[in-house]
Amino acid sequence: MDYQTRTHDLWFLIDQVLGLPRQVARLPAFAEVDADLMRQVLDESGKFVAEVVAPLNRAGDEQGARWQAGEVLMPDGFRDAYQAFWQAGWPALSCDPQDGGQGLPAVLEATLYEMLSAANHGWTMAPGLLHGAYECIKHHASDDLKRMYLGKVATGEWLATMCLTEPHAGSDLGLARTKAQPMADGRYAISGSKIFISGGEHDLTDNIVHLVLARLPDAPPGPKGLSLFLVPKIDPHGQRLPVYCDRIEEKMGLHGSPTCAMRFEAAPGWLLGEPGKGLGAMFVMMNAARLHVALQGIGLLDAAWQKADAYARERRQMRAPGVARNGQEADLIQDHPAVRRMLDTQRAWIDGGRWLAYRTALELDRAKHASDDDTRQTAQRWCALATPVMKSMFTQQAFEGSSQCLQVLGGHGYVREWGIEQHVRDARVTMIYEGTNEIQAIDLLQRKVLPDGGLALAEWMVLELASLPATDPDLARRARIWQELTQDIARVQNQPRLPFELADDYLRGLGLWMLQLAWAHIAPRLGDLPEPERARWRSAHQALRRWVLPEWDMRVGIMRTALVGTEVAA
Amino acid sequence: MDYQTRTHDLWFLIDQVLGLPRQVARLPAFAEVDADLMRQVLDESGKFVAEVVAPLNRAGDEQGARWQAGEVLMPDGFRDAYQAFWQAGWPALSCDPQDGGQGLPAVLEATLYEMLSAANHGWTMAPGLLHGAYECIKHHASDDLKRMYLGKVATGEWLATMCLTEPHAGSDLGLARTKAQPMADGRYAISGSKIFISGGEHDLTDNIVHLVLARLPDAPPGPKGLSLFLVPKIDPHGQRLPVYCDRIEEKMGLHGSPTCAMRFEAAPGWLLGEPGKGLGAMFVMMNAARLHVALQGIGLLDAAWQKADAYARERRQMRAPGVARNGQEADLIQDHPAVRRMLDTQRAWIDGGRWLAYRTALELDRAKHASDDDTRQTAQRWCALATPVMKSMFTQQAFEGSSQCLQVLGGHGYVREWGIEQHVRDARVTMIYEGTNEIQAIDLLQRKVLPDGGLALAEWMVLELASLPATDPDLARRARIWQELTQDIARVQNQPRLPFELADDYLRGLGLWMLQLAWAHIAPRLGDLPEPERARWRSAHQALRRWVLPEWDMRVGIMRTALVGTEVAA
Repeated sequence: MDYQTRTHDLWFLIDQVLGLPRQVARLPAFAEVDADLMRQVLDESGKFVAEVVAPLNRAGDEQGARWQAGEVLMPDGFRDAYQAFWQAGWPALSCDPQDGGQGLPAVLEATLYEMLSAANHGWTMAPGLLHGAYECIKHHASDDLKRMYLGKVATGEWLATMCLTEPHAGSDLGLARTKAQPMADGRYAISGSKIFISGGEHDLTDNIVHLVLARLPDAPPGPKGLSLFLVPKIDPHGQRLPVYCDRIEEKMGLHGSPTCAMRFEAAPGWLLGEPGKGLGAMFVMMNAARLHVALQGIGLLDAAWQKADAYARERRQMRAPGVARNGQEADLIQDHPAVRRMLDTQRAWIDGGRWLAYRTALELDRAKHASDDDTRQTAQRWCALATPVMKSMFTQQAFEGSSQCLQVLGGHGYVREWGIEQHVRDARVTMIYEGTNEIQAIDLLQRKVLPDGGLALAEWMVLELASLPATDPDLARRARIWQELTQDIARVQNQPRLPFELADDYLRGLGLWMLQLAWAHIAPRLGDLPEPERARWRSAHQALRRWVLPEWDMRVGIMRTALVGTEVAA
Repeated sequence: MDYQTRTHDLWFLIDQVLGLPRQVARLPAFAEVDADLMRQVLDESGKFVAEVVAPLNRAGDEQGARWQAGEVLMPDGFRDAYQAFWQAGWPALSCDPQDGGQGLPAVLEATLYEMLSAANHGWTMAPGLLHGAYECIKHHASDDLKRMYLGKVATGEWLATMCLTEPHAGSDLGLARTKAQPMADGRYAISGSKIFISGGEHDLTDNIVHLVLARLPDAPPGPKGLSLFLVPKIDPHGQRLPVYCDRIEEKMGLHGSPTCAMRFEAAPGWLLGEPGKGLGAMFVMMNAARLHVALQGIGLLDAAWQKADAYARERRQMRAPGVARNGQEADLIQDHPAVRRMLDTQRAWIDGGRWLAYRTALELDRAKHASDDDTRQTAQRWCALATPVMKSMFTQQAFEGSSQCLQVLGGHGYVREWGIEQHVRDARVTMIYEGTNEIQAIDLLQRKVLPDGGLALAEWMVLELASLPATDPDLARRARIWQELTQDIARVQNQPRLPFELADDYLRGLGLWMLQLAWAHIAPRLGDLPEPERARWRSAHQALRRWVLPEWDMRVGIMRTALVGTEVAA
């Protein structure tokens, strides 16, 4: 079955729970945006996803992208769907109107990409990097460069790549060796090899804009020697530049997206931003990309859940305990406790995850558009803390949870028939790319939390507790324990490896608290829903408490035990 | 890299930790078996696996089994390897000498299949069912039938299948509809469709022996109406019988093993055992198969671990905390705490799992060959409790743990290059076949533990604690808590769904206790090992305590919370 876009579920969170239309209308940039417009865009985007993109998913996996003598042929239908996509204005949804965008709130881009990823992860990889590239060019390119590339990238007429990784250096960008040699005309000749470049070559668009990390001749070693360059596949005079795709990788999944090994042979490009500041410029792009990856996780999990739910509603196997005899020779598997638990648990993740993602989209808009400093800073703090947590939590859940959904189908899940195994294979990569989940955890604990001894985190928790619709003693209790724990980790003196060992536990624990926070906002509004929807949401909330949150206590226990016997600063 | 058989690791557990050569020598059937012979067989089997079977793994995945007009072509090299395998006597290792077997202890079959599964899971599916089929025929077939089939199945000259599942009935065998019509010559004409039949058709052997569940004309509905039949592909007169393979499934992995949709068109076969007792006869086969599946899990996890370990020893990325500068521009990733934790944790599972599996092999031999009733019954209790726990625990760990090993390789794990993603895909099916893991959990709690209120389990825990090399207060504490919890679950009156909801937690908790038990036997012998091996085992033991066992407390907490407010029997 193709993915069904059920925009009423998303809208309930956006409108009734988060009150997003009212919130964004307070930002001057969205003074013209109201609930009706947002709902209309959401529904239209859902329609596009369901009608145009979802039906191409299976072919994308089975046919896949194919390399032929340096060209990459995309699966049947992918180019037409992409052309329809950008021509309808979807990539420009939340770009600035002065760049050719539609100036809509980030949440509509979030829901668009969540649904796209659920419907067809492979296809969605192509436009998935566009917005980051747009922001990067907008903030770092010279006016000349913007004139040539910003509009084309904003609208998605040309697709973009991030060329970071090199064969000998995976996560460690500081080891990158690609060289940039100044040319007489002010451009730079880029030479080197990059791997794992999503969409490095394809036939979706007539040009491809590569953003490439490379070193100027006099650059120091390490990350501070990296500069960012813009290298097009075809230059403004129509000349094909020496940027080659040598092969595409054979992967576990995501076959609809070509993962390219790229070779730059003195390919001319322009410096983007300042020399030696390439990593900083690229990180703007990567942070946006990380929220997108969290949304991929939520979308993929929802796609897997839909299949498991549909199967569980029609398949009968054995007698379910506590279910009245009904004349059938066996009961629906959705009535078996083990199956019910798996389905409800995944909904707890999906619906809580959506709340967190849409809330983050709001904070992104606030960070950019709010008129007062205070709101902008508070919003930035949310984004800084939430981004690594969400990237890691929801990609891990996409893999493990879609595997649980596969389990609901038994042997029918392991074969291709229902298509659920594709989601498991596709989802696995999200735990790796855009910074592995382990790197997200270290980013959270070492860079975001510990430097100020956990102060910003504590303030943030207090603020979030205060803004709940009703006081929540359990969330408050956990926040207190968490703040103490954070201080204790910050005080450890004699064990430099300890925070790195505990970073995953720390991220999981904070993420579970955020999931509980999300549900503390959702639960009071469930009365607004009609049955049987209300029952589904209530079961998910109960599953959160019974089956998901106990991990929080386990994580705290692991960290507490590890702290025993450590030396602390006075 | 191909799987490396490191038999010294296995032998350390078998000989120094479990003292298996002394233990089996006490059984009359193995009076002639000594440590030297066992070690020799172990090493020879490891050599065969490494030289003949391991190199075919990648081709098995990429080329896969292919269906052509009802025939199934196995991947290149598979037939030759299988012919060499059975002609060398490997399938008959632990079969009775009077049936053409070698009469060796079950542990040597366990280690053989663990290594085979690690080296090439797809290929190993073919002989994987042989021993169960052998036991089934040995215990249930008439003498005539045994004369025709027992020897051929014991030696593996002919391969065997289990034909259980039907399209409309997955785990619920009681719904099976395949019919058996008595024929004039005493045989039965079998008609019906079976799906998910591993090795239903192939070119490895000249004949295939199908064991088929079907209903006699007067049989009642449900499981009690099922009888077991033996239907060969080719009858004793050389005639090809009407047993057809209509297709093979496209699967997430395990491409080297054809998963067949079979059609029996009045195919003549013989009744195996008594009418209406088919399920019982089949379960003999399935219990043996479940231990094999646990061994597949352990093997696959070890295969994934070897690749991750090798990668982590050669790949350098960034600075690792607490590691002295060494003139290299980056540190080995094995020195990064997050990577170390993943690698050590998986070793805790593999090595503890091996101890449990080899111990279970010993108990299988005791249950069959011990001269006194008491030993046989104690051994049977171990097997009854350990089989569902191990099947579920080690197949889940095979999937999740091999995914963790994949994570160590980052993007290089997601592409085919190192072959680790194949293990993740292959491992996924082990959580489903031979009874899904949810069914194992229900089997444990509902059938094995609760009927006597947890009495047998409690006795078993006491006995295991008493036979530890040294008292272990922590294991004893957990056993007490577990016994109380079990009694409390047994006393619940008003919630028929509750034990089914908690079955997974119950199985995980008991499984973690067993893993801790295994390490309580292993740890005191680590001093016997030379460095650097000793350090590797010690790190794994530490990982068990720090990162694995906290889940036990979480499971207890989940169950305790669920029990609050339930009504109990007086």
